[in-house]
Amino acid sequence: MIVLHHLNQSRSLRILWLLEEIGQPYTLKPYYRDATTNLAPPELKNIHPLGKSPVIELDGKVIAESGAIVELLIQRYAPHLAPQPHEDAYIDYLQWVHFAESSAMVPYLLKVFTAIEMQKGTMLTFLDHYAQVEFDKVFGYLEQYLQGKRFLVDNRLTGADFMLGFVIYGLVYKLKIADQYPNIIQYLHNLEAFPSWQRALKIEKDM
Amino acid sequence: MIVLHHLNQSRSLRILWLLEEIGQPYTLKPYYRDATTNLAPPELKNIHPLGKSPVIELDGKVIAESGAIVELLIQRYAPHLAPQPHEDAYIDYLQWVHFAESSAMVPYLLKVFTAIEMQKGTMLTFLDHYAQVEFDKVFGYLEQYLQGKRFLVDNRLTGADFMLGFVIYGLVYKLKIADQYPNIIQYLHNLEAFPSWQRALKIEKDM
Repeated sequence: MIVLHHLNQSRSLRILWLLEEIGQPYTLKPYYRDATTNLAPPELKNIHPLGKSPVIELDGKVIAESGAIVELLIQRYAPHLAPQPHEDAYIDYLQWVHFAESSAMVPYLLKVFTAIEMQKGTMLTFLDHYAQVEFDKVFGYLEQYLQGKRFLVDNRLTGADFMLGFVIYGLVYKLKIADQYPNIIQYLHNLEAFPSWQRALKIEKDM
Repeated sequence: MIVLHHLNQSRSLRILWLLEEIGQPYTLKPYYRDATTNLAPPELKNIHPLGKSPVIELDGKVIAESGAIVELLIQRYAPHLAPQPHEDAYIDYLQWVHFAESSAMVPYLLKVFTAIEMQKGTMLTFLDHYAQVEFDKVFGYLEQYLQGKRFLVDNRLTGADFMLGFVIYGLVYKLKIADQYPNIIQYLHNLEAFPSWQRALKIEKDM
């Protein structure tokens, strides 16, 4: 039995999409960001002390960290969504799963946070420049890497796409990156074409 | 054949320590942060377009992302450093491996970055408060979790410790967290007691 504690506009979109793709029955418990502060509601702390989302309950065990949840759900219910350790693509798979939450997430979050800070009238002297340099480097690399590719790894949908899709969704619709990233934008459109992606977004919209 | 492209004061300490613990032969190629900017040198971009460290070469393949490298090296050379998927501790293992680079790394980096920004005289109105709240939440949780524990998972050294040790090292020696985190500080001392940890730090010091 799977329960997903799902916060809107959070990394939990990774898990909602994955569960829809896998087709495994699950119960969704919705949580909503505070309309003013945009923070997660305190009720999430009753589920896990970090007070974050995604959190799942799996056979009664409470599990946090989207990367761990993606790895675990795929191993248990959808091994076809990852190369196996003996396959050549396995090393690429590991790299891109970790890329999504490490190399990609830090500059993405820095851009989001520095934008909020600057909207409040603060003149930054270090962090805006640093964030932009990191952003350009990381997503410039991704843009080049995606040239001619529909998916991140092995020319097929894998857990790496579930991990990175959420970041790219924010890049395109929140940070509104545009013309200089055609491959990244096309990659997002490839993910958006999956009925499971569309169902996940509709569930979040309707909740 | 393993080559480690190692940048001082970087996540690459995770891999240097792991290689020393595993005892697998490897070649270390040292890189040094710029003394003024503290940035990685441009030569690292010749190894991998992200220009970051750690990067390893394994049988000629270039591999980035410390989390991927830890998972891979343990699977290949040191399976005793991780619970196996059928073991109860496996789910905790996955969570703590991902915690180190996701939940822990973001507030740690925000504290480091906002400190640099404020040293330059900037008055922050959002990010310093946000960073502190996240920091207190995440490391308060870790502090509680570590009560009575020598290691993160399964009462033994695992890949999760290699991942988190680097963050805690920065927390204690760079951010100088102190009295309110006795369990975290004791946890670091437990890691520092390993001869492999001591060899890794000496290698970095002498390089």
